[in-house]
Amino acid sequence: MEKFAETSYPVADVVRKRWSTVIFSEKLIEREKLLSLIEAARWASSCFNEQPWSFIVATKDDLEEYAKMLDCIVEGNREWASTAPVLMISVAKLHFDRNGSPNRHSYHDVGLAIGNMVTQATEMGIHMHQMGGFYLDKTREVYSIPETHDPVAAIALGYLGEIDSASEALQNREKSPRSRKTIDKFLFSGKWGEVSKLI
Amino acid sequence: MEKFAETSYPVADVVRKRWSTVIFSEKLIEREKLLSLIEAARWASSCFNEQPWSFIVATKDDLEEYAKMLDCIVEGNREWASTAPVLMISVAKLHFDRNGSPNRHSYHDVGLAIGNMVTQATEMGIHMHQMGGFYLDKTREVYSIPETHDPVAAIALGYLGEIDSASEALQNREKSPRSRKTIDKFLFSGKWGEVSKLI
Repeated sequence: MEKFAETSYPVADVVRKRWSTVIFSEKLIEREKLLSLIEAARWASSCFNEQPWSFIVATKDDLEEYAKMLDCIVEGNREWASTAPVLMISVAKLHFDRNGSPNRHSYHDVGLAIGNMVTQATEMGIHMHQMGGFYLDKTREVYSIPETHDPVAAIALGYLGEIDSASEALQNREKSPRSRKTIDKFLFSGKWGEVSKLI
Repeated sequence: MEKFAETSYPVADVVRKRWSTVIFSEKLIEREKLLSLIEAARWASSCFNEQPWSFIVATKDDLEEYAKMLDCIVEGNREWASTAPVLMISVAKLHFDRNGSPNRHSYHDVGLAIGNMVTQATEMGIHMHQMGGFYLDKTREVYSIPETHDPVAAIALGYLGEIDSASEALQNREKSPRSRKTIDKFLFSGKWGEVSKLI
């Protein structure tokens, strides 16, 4: 299955062909490839090069640890997330190492790191599906994440599964087209809300 | 000039060869390519597909608007940022459209959109350099950005310039190697701070 974005202007294949699947294959992600995902995240830019990202990872190589992370994800996501061979929690460090002051870019920079990871994943045929739907307090407690850091998102990762293997509900969800706002809704010049003449 | 990341595990070229230049060429970014950058950002994933990102853009095609945005950037960044033909401000919507509740992923999702934009830029030979160093209140005032939204980062965009054209200080900065934490500092399994056995 493919699900190309219908773009108004050309974009690279690695951007165009990504989507957040809900049907993963049972195939495990090779250790080296998993580390390439982390390596890609590592090279993102960040405010003052603080690299405020961390990742907690659980794979189906260790079913006990996998179940522990799956338990942190809200019930509504578990049907499909549990088909993924790898789960992660992204974490943001909230203050700068350099001077202890709040880092207003910490979540943003975690997003940049995940952006790199998504690019690397797509290049390798791996799909990622991020979730806001996980238990924040439970995750903090289960993994002893200190108050200096915030769990940001849960992520399911794996190869694409056979669409016929999934429930009808998931098949329908998988087939639904990707939709986005048009560019005139978010590209401004001169003043907030003034559509850029570039369009 | 090239400045490949020294990676421990292989990553895609589009990740490996990106860096935040401080020496831009005078060459303008073609309108179509600029719109491809925005189009790439558009297709990022986001929590509930809320797409909380907006961008205010200024190009050297309109020197008055360009100067207005440059004025929002802190003095220390202006020497190099002013060599870029395009400036942007990224903006995050702080509450969900769907129900008005706070969106804790808004900055993160702006980061994901910028992650896509960076990938697209690198594919097209365009460099981006993001800055936390801009005047938040001034930017809000100059562009009438409402309290429902936050300016997140300033961004300089353009093609790579000739290194000899820049001041010695910028040349040294441009030549300094890219450095990152090692993976064992931020990849955990089982518990916060426990280095993942994957490494």
